[in-house]
Parts: sequence; structure tokens; C-alpha cells
Amino acid sequence: MSRIVTLSVMGVALLMGWSSLIGVRSNAAENQDVRPRAREIGIAPGVLRPGPLNAITDVSGVRVGNVTLVEGEDVRTGVTAILPHGGNLFQDKVPAGVAVGNAFGKFAGSTQIDELGEIETPIILTNTLSVAEGIAGAVEWTLALEGNEKVRSVNAVVGETNDGYLNAIRQRRVTKDDILKAIAAASGGPVAEGNVGAGTGTQAFGWKGGIGTSSRILPKRLGGYTVGVLVQTNYGGVLSIAGAPVGKELGSYYLKDAQDEYRAGGSIIVVMATDAPLSDRNLKRLARRAFNGIASTGSPMTNDSGDYAIAFSTGNTVRRTRERRGAVSAVEDLPNDQVSPLFQAAMEGTEEAIYNAMLKATTMKGTEDHVRAELPLDRLKEILVRHGITAGTPAGSP
Amino acid sequence: MSRIVTLSVMGVALLMGWSSLIGVRSNAAENQDVRPRAREIGIAPGVLRPGPLNAITDVSGVRVGNVTLVEGEDVRTGVTAILPHGGNLFQDKVPAGVAVGNAFGKFAGSTQIDELGEIETPIILTNTLSVAEGIAGAVEWTLALEGNEKVRSVNAVVGETNDGYLNAIRQRRVTKDDILKAIAAASGGPVAEGNVGAGTGTQAFGWKGGIGTSSRILPKRLGGYTVGVLVQTNYGGVLSIAGAPVGKELGSYYLKDAQDEYRAGGSIIVVMATDAPLSDRNLKRLARRAFNGIASTGSPMTNDSGDYAIAFSTGNTVRRTRERRGAVSAVEDLPNDQVSPLFQAAMEGTEEAIYNAMLKATTMKGTEDHVRAELPLDRLKEILVRHGITAGTPAGSP
Amino acid sequence: MSRIVTLSVMGVALLMGWSSLIGVRSNAAENQDVRPRAREIGIAPGVLRPGPLNAITDVSGVRVGNVTLVEGEDVRTGVTAILPHGGNLFQDKVPAGVAVGNAFGKFAGSTQIDELGEIETPIILTNTLSVAEGIAGAVEWTLALEGNEKVRSVNAVVGETNDGYLNAIRQRRVTKDDILKAIAAASGGPVAEGNVGAGTGTQAFGWKGGIGTSSRILPKRLGGYTVGVLVQTNYGGVLSIAGAPVGKELGSYYLKDAQDEYRAGGSIIVVMATDAPLSDRNLKRLARRAFNGIASTGSPMTNDSGDYAIAFSTGNTVRRTRERRGAVSAVEDLPNDQVSPLFQAAMEGTEEAIYNAMLKATTMKGTEDHVRAELPLDRLKEILVRHGITAGTPAGSP
Amino acid sequence: MSRIVTLSVMGVALLMGWSSLIGVRSNAAENQDVRPRAREIGIAPGVLRPGPLNAITDVSGVRVGNVTLVEGEDVRTGVTAILPHGGNLFQDKVPAGVAVGNAFGKFAGSTQIDELGEIETPIILTNTLSVAEGIAGAVEWTLALEGNEKVRSVNAVVGETNDGYLNAIRQRRVTKDDILKAIAAASGGPVAEGNVGAGTGTQAFGWKGGIGTSSRILPKRLGGYTVGVLVQTNYGGVLSIAGAPVGKELGSYYLKDAQDEYRAGGSIIVVMATDAPLSDRNLKRLARRAFNGIASTGSPMTNDSGDYAIAFSTGNTVRRTRERRGAVSAVEDLPNDQVSPLFQAAMEGTEEAIYNAMLKATTMKGTEDHVRAELPLDRLKEILVRHGITAGTPAGSP
Repeated sequence: MSRIVTLSVMGVALLMGWSSLIGVRSNAAENQDVRPRAREIGIAPGVLRPGPLNAITDVSGVRVGNVTLVEGEDVRTGVTAILPHGGNLFQDKVPAGVAVGNAFGKFAGSTQIDELGEIETPIILTNTLSVAEGIAGAVEWTLALEGNEKVRSVNAVVGETNDGYLNAIRQRRVTKDDILKAIAAASGGPVAEGNVGAGTGTQAFGWKGGIGTSSRILPKRLGGYTVGVLVQTNYGGVLSIAGAPVGKELGSYYLKDAQDEYRAGGSIIVVMATDAPLSDRNLKRLARRAFNGIASTGSPMTNDSGDYAIAFSTGNTVRRTRERRGAVSAVEDLPNDQVSPLFQAAMEGTEEAIYNAMLKATTMKGTEDHVRAELPLDRLKEILVRHGITAGTPAGSP
Repeated sequence: MSRIVTLSVMGVALLMGWSSLIGVRSNAAENQDVRPRAREIGIAPGVLRPGPLNAITDVSGVRVGNVTLVEGEDVRTGVTAILPHGGNLFQDKVPAGVAVGNAFGKFAGSTQIDELGEIETPIILTNTLSVAEGIAGAVEWTLALEGNEKVRSVNAVVGETNDGYLNAIRQRRVTKDDILKAIAAASGGPVAEGNVGAGTGTQAFGWKGGIGTSSRILPKRLGGYTVGVLVQTNYGGVLSIAGAPVGKELGSYYLKDAQDEYRAGGSIIVVMATDAPLSDRNLKRLARRAFNGIASTGSPMTNDSGDYAIAFSTGNTVRRTRERRGAVSAVEDLPNDQVSPLFQAAMEGTEEAIYNAMLKATTMKGTEDHVRAELPLDRLKEILVRHGITAGTPAGSP
Repeated sequence: MSRIVTLSVMGVALLMGWSSLIGVRSNAAENQDVRPRAREIGIAPGVLRPGPLNAITDVSGVRVGNVTLVEGEDVRTGVTAILPHGGNLFQDKVPAGVAVGNAFGKFAGSTQIDELGEIETPIILTNTLSVAEGIAGAVEWTLALEGNEKVRSVNAVVGETNDGYLNAIRQRRVTKDDILKAIAAASGGPVAEGNVGAGTGTQAFGWKGGIGTSSRILPKRLGGYTVGVLVQTNYGGVLSIAGAPVGKELGSYYLKDAQDEYRAGGSIIVVMATDAPLSDRNLKRLARRAFNGIASTGSPMTNDSGDYAIAFSTGNTVRRTRERRGAVSAVEDLPNDQVSPLFQAAMEGTEEAIYNAMLKATTMKGTEDHVRAELPLDRLKEILVRHGITAGTPAGSP
Repeated sequence: MSRIVTLSVMGVALLMGWSSLIGVRSNAAENQDVRPRAREIGIAPGVLRPGPLNAITDVSGVRVGNVTLVEGEDVRTGVTAILPHGGNLFQDKVPAGVAVGNAFGKFAGSTQIDELGEIETPIILTNTLSVAEGIAGAVEWTLALEGNEKVRSVNAVVGETNDGYLNAIRQRRVTKDDILKAIAAASGGPVAEGNVGAGTGTQAFGWKGGIGTSSRILPKRLGGYTVGVLVQTNYGGVLSIAGAPVGKELGSYYLKDAQDEYRAGGSIIVVMATDAPLSDRNLKRLARRAFNGIASTGSPMTNDSGDYAIAFSTGNTVRRTRERRGAVSAVEDLPNDQVSPLFQAAMEGTEEAIYNAMLKATTMKGTEDHVRAELPLDRLKEILVRHGITAGTPAGSP
């Protein structure tokens, strides 16, 4: 059987080029193209405005790359790589912080990030049983970079969620090469969402989920900083969208009945970037606000969910260059008293990135004939109107 | 000027008895009696049902006591004491866990709780500058109990929020005796809400807040356990009630304008009780879900907020009695795989307790002529209807 | 009965002035004057050199003040206050980090320090049941400072150990005024050791312990920074001094016999100052090295021990002045790669400060006729010689 | 070039069989057979007695397996696998806790262990750049076990230290198969020490280090429990052996001179087993005492050291069997008040395991002609005598 690897650098364009080769997925891809992002149907959580792309790449320098693996009936998985900047990440480390919501998960690299307050590799997202390959790929990419000839220690950062319902995860299909391809494919610009990369086979609240992204820009008087968010959704609960009780209205929610009660888990990984000059401590605090965004969508973070968030700063004035790592140097710092607006941005951005993941994701059939249906768009719109969420539409109007 | 101390054992009854002595507050007290709890106006967050009192005291054995201090123009503060059981708490300790959301706060006792997984005193809530008195009271109460004659070490648990907008907090009006009175006043049964005890002078989202409570009972097939929650609100953000964008609709929310942007903080303390036989680790996880409930109300947990949650189990089979502390013994344990429904209960219960605090709280005038207005009930009801929240009311209906 | 309060600013001089008023203690005080510090009898742990005073006050600007309470038969307690600098600590905060070894303790203020990375009050040490008074004193001192007229939130930092064997601790003798006096008494210069301040009634390894201090200076090529340490000892284990098995040789150690086996606990608080420009994260790491010093003296940190360390930086380039707290500013940072020599300094300094506490402490009789004997100097010297520790003395020589 | 894999099941016997194939190492292997363990030359840290094997395998059921990779000039590495019991570890999980000393390291699995309090795979130790293979091996071993056919999530536990001075670590020579072989080779009984498994190419204090083990048994009156420890050493500082200043005496220690000052790092992983019925919280506390043992050997835990400890209980009454994971059940618990003797055991056992690693390790030459010399035995013995450590030998005697 032929193996299809999609490098979703720019997302849809390339994806469409390959679409004739595959069945369900090609439809999905087409559908992804048609389905709206949250903001296009009036879902605009929070009070701050998004950046031009409404994506993590609105933070200057950040790059995202995907490898999407859809093969035969069984393989529905992939890799998403996020690069804080396009240079040598090991030599020019960025300050970072990790927050843990519920740690039924295999997130790699967190203890060293806590200790040193920095990351030195791309952030790799993939499936639960492919963390090994994620680490191997991030390590080998780093070792091979010019200037790293003497490097003997690399702290790979790898997050995962479990796509095992659609993907025959026990096959451990993702290879080290797939990781390297995702890193190589990384670029700025628009970010592919839905059934791509590490979100290819994942879900959210029982519906098809995947990769989503969003961003927020602070008003100039608050610093004008950007916060960008990218999520890999696979979790659950009682779905609320911009406050509307979508889960209840659709009759599908955690604890609805005995069958459902232990199936809300599955994890979410949140990656956050900002250009604000934050210390690693304040980046950890920023990351923690991802869980406020997640909670806003109706999740109690069930026992079997691996909910992690990582935030980094791309600011030049805080970057840990070779020079700064060699001697006392001046580092800029946004003081504690001024971080709250960024916290609001992190919360809102996470919430909207999740909606984008769910909206752009499309129905997928996978292993053992399992099917994850996409969130039904018409019913969703109707619910949003009925609950007075959709901007400009009088609630209850005919 | 005469000093008025209200022992709000059973809450409203006593409160009314004193009401003729005071101005604004007596109105408040009367109003508190009339204003509804959330569920009475159709606000019922989540999917689980509340207990008979919809209060933390639905967890058998739990007691709550208040001292409300409203004196002259300047004093608007108080104490709330929560007792896990009515016995000697030091000799019969209960397993417990603390979770920290954002720690701009002075919560006392957390490190020992982390280390030993238990609490041994009442939980005291009061204002930020009265933690010392809270500790002194909890310690002296413990030392004086029969059977504690040789006790020389007591880990007092004290939470606080800052009522300094209405209360002349720098006067440090709360005394050790007030703490002892609140403990002595503690009882089971209905719990006073709104402007009482430690919530006397506090706010929420810029409106008057205070003490609130709620509970959830799991279905029998999930164990039938109860989770009870009590909150002392003083925090902010962009208020959402059961999903309705109340903050935006009322034109009062975090980051609305330059004046408002740094004033969302102020803290919230959440106390949770359950009769489920949880380990201290799982109690800490349960406590963490308080922040999911808080986030659901629209808070990003700003920099200047002290957001803490503490959860304990009242189960006999996990209680750390003198016997169990003296030798290897059998302890019951609800396994990890079965804790998720409790997490849902914790999240929902926290959300509803907050709404109860805001709804029962009434407009108060305090120091420097500061006034905190109560959440306007009519406008709230109208917003809820318009957003299709209120059960049975067609959204958008005339 | 007359009450004696000793302000041990400069330590011994004042102490001697009062000595005729008291019995056992005056002898103790005289003895304290004669008994050597560790280095005077050849105990010089580690490889770095101490500062001129071999005290925490070698870090420029740091001040220490004691109130020693020895009254009648029952009161053997006190207060030690450490001030990072002589200015308005609330307005000019210092970066800080707390590390927890074993948290059977009531250390106040740690969660806010973790969250914000700073302290804003003096550090108060006292006995276990007087933490309330410690907080009250630190809060009121702060509120009263010029420039703090509008301050409504103060995060007091209070550590404690349990002097209840010699001190009738349940009397809760320490008052808020004692705290204020200790702060007022704080000065630079030589630091009193042994039975003073918060160490008045404490022990170490079953011998009399108390307050001790030490310092280390890095070589110029490593930055030339100073690390100062002050300890309040009250813990135990199997005493080792500079490697010599003193506990075993003296026949007094943890687990020696059934009677002793549960009595090794009691806590130690370690306060560390440095002028190195460390981030709060690296200060927390520095603080953690206190436990390496403690372990070197033979302690397993038993269950009932409250072992905490706090480290702060006095560096001007990292101080959180009103200006720095109001806008983005440049902060100096010693990079991760250069902190290790400071870690060695922290470990050594803690070890030596403990030996100083034990050596300067003298036999004390207290409540219920309990007596804590001082570490026998002659036998110690003999053991050190026999184990080849004492510099310049051939082991086993006559 | 031929590739040599040594399955060191029973350690020395097999090792000797292969010795004619290799140069330096075969000498090393022979030497390892001759060189004594610590206790054989009178080094007996602490006050408790060891178990019959003085090894982690004294804890009933624990198994250890090694794969030692010594190939050509460049490969000096390997794998050590520790199994808490011989059954299906995923189905019959064991309670566990992880402690972090200094986290410049890539330890995998810690966040899930923190969250759930348990481990479900073998513990794999290997080199820094082979964590990926460690995870892949532990995952695939688990997936392949009978009864795990439906398992889709595995939390692999992998520790590492950096053998890159002797081993051409960038080659990433360790394979997934090597991991599987180490697991397959695991058995009870005597444990190979020194240059074996994950300790093949590692160091300690600048000397050759490796794998070491030790154990302690509590007196019957304290429960009679066993604590077993296994270490993979690669760290440094100012070496002290049983209190004797060996580093200084040998003129080789951290900060001795400018050349040496940044080279003390390198990490240590400590694995602890006990049959005591400890909760996961108390296992984490037990693990933390590893650092007391490490500190006793003279380490400040430098910036670049990855110092982790993991402890698990093999007790049947705490094992998380399929049954216990499915419903409320009774679990035995040793109360907080009785854990201190185990803490002492953990500290002592770690210290002795380190000495065993250093004593059994032998001089090794590796990549780039680098050589790590073994700790010189004669000089060590002389130093121990001179410092009165060696039992029965009068210090300073001719």
C-alpha cells in the first residue's frame, strides 16, 4: 500500500494537491477548506483582538510544520512541529515555562525546562506512543545543525495526545524521519487546522478535533504585545462554545449516561508564543492560563487526560544567545504588575484555538471502522443564534 | 461607637435580629433574604444534581460558622470558619490537598498539607491583613481542646481575600476572639451567603461578592458521593454566568478601558469537602478543579489575585485517627480511574457557589464612601433569557 | 516576675550587660563568649573562603536583629529578624526563592514568593506557635513605613522551629512587639550566635543548638560574589562534623535505641543572602543547596522536621524598585552556566553555619526542668583530631 | 568491527566469559571482580544494617538487568533495567514517587507519576541521547505482554546520565533492542556494579563511576522493612567518603582550579525499592532522601547535573492490581509518623551504593583516547585509615 505523507507547510494548498490520492481524507481536506474558522461564524471569545493571521505565527519568527499520515484504513496520525525561531535553537535558546493541568500524559522535557527556564529544540507534537520518535527526531535535528558539532546533551520537548480511536496507534507508525520532515516543513504564515499533523486522528468532546490556532494583540497602551496559541485537542467534558451549551443541546456530553461516563479524557496540548519580554517564571504563569481557556469550553480535565501547556518568548531582549549564556548580561523584563492583560490573551486565545480546531476538523473514518463525526455546522449555528452568541443576529429571530 | 458582632450560625435569622442597629447593612441583610440563589432563577451549571441544601454542609459532618463585622463607616469584614467534622480535628485529622491557581495571596498552612496530606485545624477565611489573627485563633482553639494538652505544634489553615475597598483593612480589626467565635458558631445546616463572614466586604467582577456555597451528588452508579463547595469571592475578569456574557452586556469587564485594566484582581478561596474516600493526592487534584469552575465564570486569574483551593475528605475510612496514625492500617481508596465524575462535580459546584455569592450579596457602602453595587437582578434575568440560559424561557421572547 | 528582653543587636556586649539578672542563661552568655566558632578550632568545611565576618552580614546591606526571651523557668524563646536591606523593603522588593526540604512546618509566605519571585518584608524567625505574631509584626512594621500609606496587602515571611522542650511554648509568649523590636534592632556587623533570638531555646542532634551564621566569597574569576547564610537549628540525625562521626563517637544519634528513634525531628530554617545578580529561579535553586549542607551534617530530614530555605539577592541590578515594577526594564542576570560555584558556596556556608550554631550554643535549663547540654568541646576536639579533621594536627598524635 | 553485547544477568560470570574479546575492558572486568565493595574495606555509612545481598534485589521481587556496550574505541555505553516485580507491570502497577534534585536531565515519565502516583513499566537507565530508545523499548515491551492487547497508552520511565566523555554519545548507539535485552536479562540475586549497563561509560567526581547498589533493613521494632537502592553515577563535587575528605586528599575536586570549575556536573539517577506499604506521597518523600545521601558524598548538585530519584513499593497490600484499579478497595498505609527510619535507610543506602559504584568501577579508555581512571584503592585505604574511618584500624597508627 502506498504511503502518503503530506507536508502541510502552507496548509491547504499542498494538501489539495495530494487529495486525489486518498479517500475519506481528501473529502475531509476539501471540507476543511470550506468549513469556517470560529470567527467567521461570529464566535469571538474574550475582549481582545486577534492578529492578522489569528494564528500562533502572528508572533514574529514562529514557524509551524506538519506531517499528516493517512494511510489505508488504519493510519490516522501525524506530527506538528513548532519552532520559536528560524535559527539555531540550541545555541539561541528561548525562555520558556511549562504548566501541567492534569498529567495523564507523556510530555517530554518538562523537568529541565522547569530547572533552567528555557527550551533548546523545536516543540514536537505527535501521538502518545510516538514520543520516542519525537525525541529521536528533535535530538538528531539538533545534533546535525551547523555549530552544534560538540553538543552532547539535548532536551527534546515533545507533547502528545492519544489518537488511538481512529489510528491503529499500537503500530507506532510515526518515524524519526516524519519528525524531521515536520521540522523541515515549518514556516511562518497561515497555519493549517483540523485534521492535520498531530491532530490528524484526534477528537474533542466526542467530535472530530485536531490542530487549531489563534492569537491576540494587546492594545498599545498595554504594550502592544502578541500572544499566539496552537492546540492539539483530544479532550472532553460538557462542550460549551462561547458560552452556549452546545454539548447539552446536541445531547452529547460527559456523564450523560453510564456508557459515556468514563470516556471524556484524551488530553490537550497547548503551545503559546509571545513577543513580550517575560521571565521564565512569568511564561510558566502565562502557560497556566491555557487551562482557563480549556475550562471555558466545558472541561473538568478528567483523570485520563494529559493536559499540558508550554509558553515561550521570542523577544530578542530575553533570548539566551551564546553571549548571554556566557556572562552576566542585561535582560529585559516585563514586571509582574503588567502581565495580567497577557493572561487574558492566553485564556481567550486558547479558547478560540480550540474552536478553530473543532470547526476546521472534518469527519474521519479510521481503524476498526471507527468514525469521528465533525461538529455539525448547521446545528451549531442554530444553537449560537438561539443563545444570542452570534454577533449581529437577534437571538430567537426567525 | 458600639461594636457589632454578628454570629451568623444559621445565617439569616440571627442577622435579621441585629438589622435595626445598622444602616446600609440592615437593608443589605433584608435584601439578602429576598435575593434568590442561582438555581432559583434558573442558573444550574453543569450536569449533576445538587444535594438537599445545595451547600458544603451536604457533606455529612461539615460545619460552617461566620462572624460578620460591620461597624461604623469603616469596618466591613469578618471571619468564616469551616470544620471538617465536629470532633477533635487535631487528633482525628482528615486527608486534604491544596491547589494553587495564582498565588498573590497569604494562604497559611499549605506546605505542611502538601508534605503530610492532611489538615488538623478548622479552615479559617478572613481578610488579607488578618491572617495572623486567623492563625492565632486556630492555634489557641486547638491547644485548648480536651485531649490536646501536650500538643506543641499546630498547622493552622487560613485563607484570605482583600476587602480593602470597602473595609479599612489597615485597621486590622479582626481579633483572635473573632476567630474563636466563628469556630464556636460553626454548625451544619443551611449556610449563610453573600455579605457575611469573610465575604462581608469582598467583591466579584466589580460587583458586590461574598460567601457562596453549592454541592453536587454523583449518581449511585458512580458511587453516590457528595462534593460540597464554599467560596469567598473577590476576583474578576470578564463575567460570564452560565455562559451568558453578563460582563459585556453590563458594560463592566476587565480590560474594557484604560482605567479598568489593572483592577481585575482580588482573589478567591475555594473550600471543598467530599465524603468520597480519596487519597490526599486525589484531593489535591479535586481541589485543582476549582479553577475550572472559576475560569468558567470568565476569569483569567490576574497577577494580583490569590486563588487557592483546598479539598478534604470526611470519609471515616480515610480519617487519620489516633489509631491509624500509630500503626499500619487499612485505608480505603477510590482509584484514579473513578475520580473523574468528582472532578466534574468540583468544577460545577465551584461555578454555582460563585453565582450564589454574587446573587446573595447586596449593595454595600464602606470606608471612604466606597460603594460596591450588587449585581442588578432584573438586568441579569433579562440577559439570561436573551441568551437562552434560563430554563423554559424561550430566548428572545417578548 | 520581671520580664527580660534582650536586644542582641551586636550580640554579646548587650547580652553581657543583662547577664547579672539571670541564672543559667547568664552563664550561658558568658560561655557563649568563650566558646569558639567552628573555624577557630579548625573546622572549615568545603573549599571556598569565608568573608571578613564569616556571617550573613558579609553580604552588603543585610541586617540581623534578635530579641532573646529568657524569663523564669519557662520562657526560652525569641525572635530573629533578617532584613535584605535597610530601606523600604515593600517598595524596593528583592528577588527571592524558597526551597522546601521537609515541610512539617509553618513557614509563612512561600506561595506568594513562588508566584512573584520576590519578598517585601523582613524575614522573621521565631517559635512554632508564634508564627501569628511574626506575621502581625512584619505586617504592622510594613504598614507603618513612610511611603506605605496606601499599602493594603503584605506578604510576611516567617519561619519557625519548635523550642518546646526548653520553652513552655504553649504559653505563646512572643508578642507582636517582640517582632517589632527584633526588626528595630537589626544591624549589619557581627551576628550573635548560639542561644539568641529565635535560637534561644532550640536544639540540634539532641545538643543545644540555636542561631549560626557563615559566609563564602567566590574567587574573582568566578565573579567574586558573596553568599551569606544564617540558620536556626532544631533538627537531628546522626551527627557528622566536617566528616567526623561525632554522633556515633558520643553515643548519641538517631535510631541508636528504641527510645530515641522517633525524636530526631525538629526543623531547621536557612536564610541565604547573595549579592550575585540571580533570577528568582536561580535563587530558589541556590536555596535548595541548603539541604546539601544540612545532609552533610548527618540528617535524613525526618518526618517531623520543618526544613525550609530562603535565598534572596541584594544586587542593585536585580532589585525590584518602584521604577522597575512600573515598566519594562533591564535586569542583570548571572546565566545558568555560571551559578554552580554559588551552589557550592551555599552548601558549605550552610554546613558551617550549623556548626557555629552548635558550638556557640551553651547548656540551657528550661521548662519542666528540661536541660539541653551543649556539645562537649573537649570531646569534640579530641574526635576531630582522631579523625584527622583538625588542620595541622597529625591524627592520632599525642 | 564486531559488536559486543554483554548480558550481565548475573553480572560477573557472564562478563568474564566475554573478556578475552576486548582489551581495556576485559582488564576492567577482571579488575571489577577483584576490587572490593565499600563494606569489604570498612566503609559502612550510617547506622542501619544492609540486607543479605546489600543490593536493591534484597527487596523481594525486584529484578535488574544490564546490557553493556563496549565496541571498538568509541562505544562505551549501555542499559540498566529495573523491574519492580516479575509480573505484568502495566496491569499490576506499583505506587511510586519521583524527586528532583537538579533537573538538567531528560528523565521521562515524571509528570504522570506525580499525577497518578504509580509506575507501569520497567525503569530504564541509559545515556542522555538514548532516552528515545529507552522509551521505545519500554513501550514495545509493554504492548507485547500477554493481557495488554488493548493497551494504547504507556508511561515509560527512563533516566539517563551523560557518558559522552568516554562514549561517542552522538552516535546514539543504543537501540530499542538493547532496551528489550536488558529487560529480558533482568533477574533477582546479586547485582553487577561498576562499568556495566547504563554505568558502562559514566564517571563520579572525575573518577570512573558506574552502577552501584546497596540496601538497608530496619529493626523489627521499626517494621523490619527493606529499602534497596541502585545508582547510576555521573556527578561530581568535592568527594567525601564516609566523611573522609578523599577529594581534597587526592588533589582532585570541584573548584580546585580554573580548569576544573565548570566540570563537576554530569548527573546521578537513584532508583529505590521498598517493601514498606507506603503511599505515593511518602514514596516521593523517600525518594527525596536520595539527595541527602548524594550530598553526604560531597556534591553541591551543580547546574549541569541531572539528579533524579524514583522510589516504588513492592508491597502486595499497596499494589495497584486490576481489581484495586476497578473499585474502592482497602490499601495498607504506613503512617507519616513511622516513615523516618525509612528516610534514614534511603539516605544511607544511597551513599553506600555510590561508593560501591566507584569502587567496583575500573579504569576505562574510550572515544578520542579519553581515559577515566579508577579511584586508586591503595591511596583510598590509606586516607580512610588516616581519618579514622576504617573500622578497627587505629587512626594514625604506623
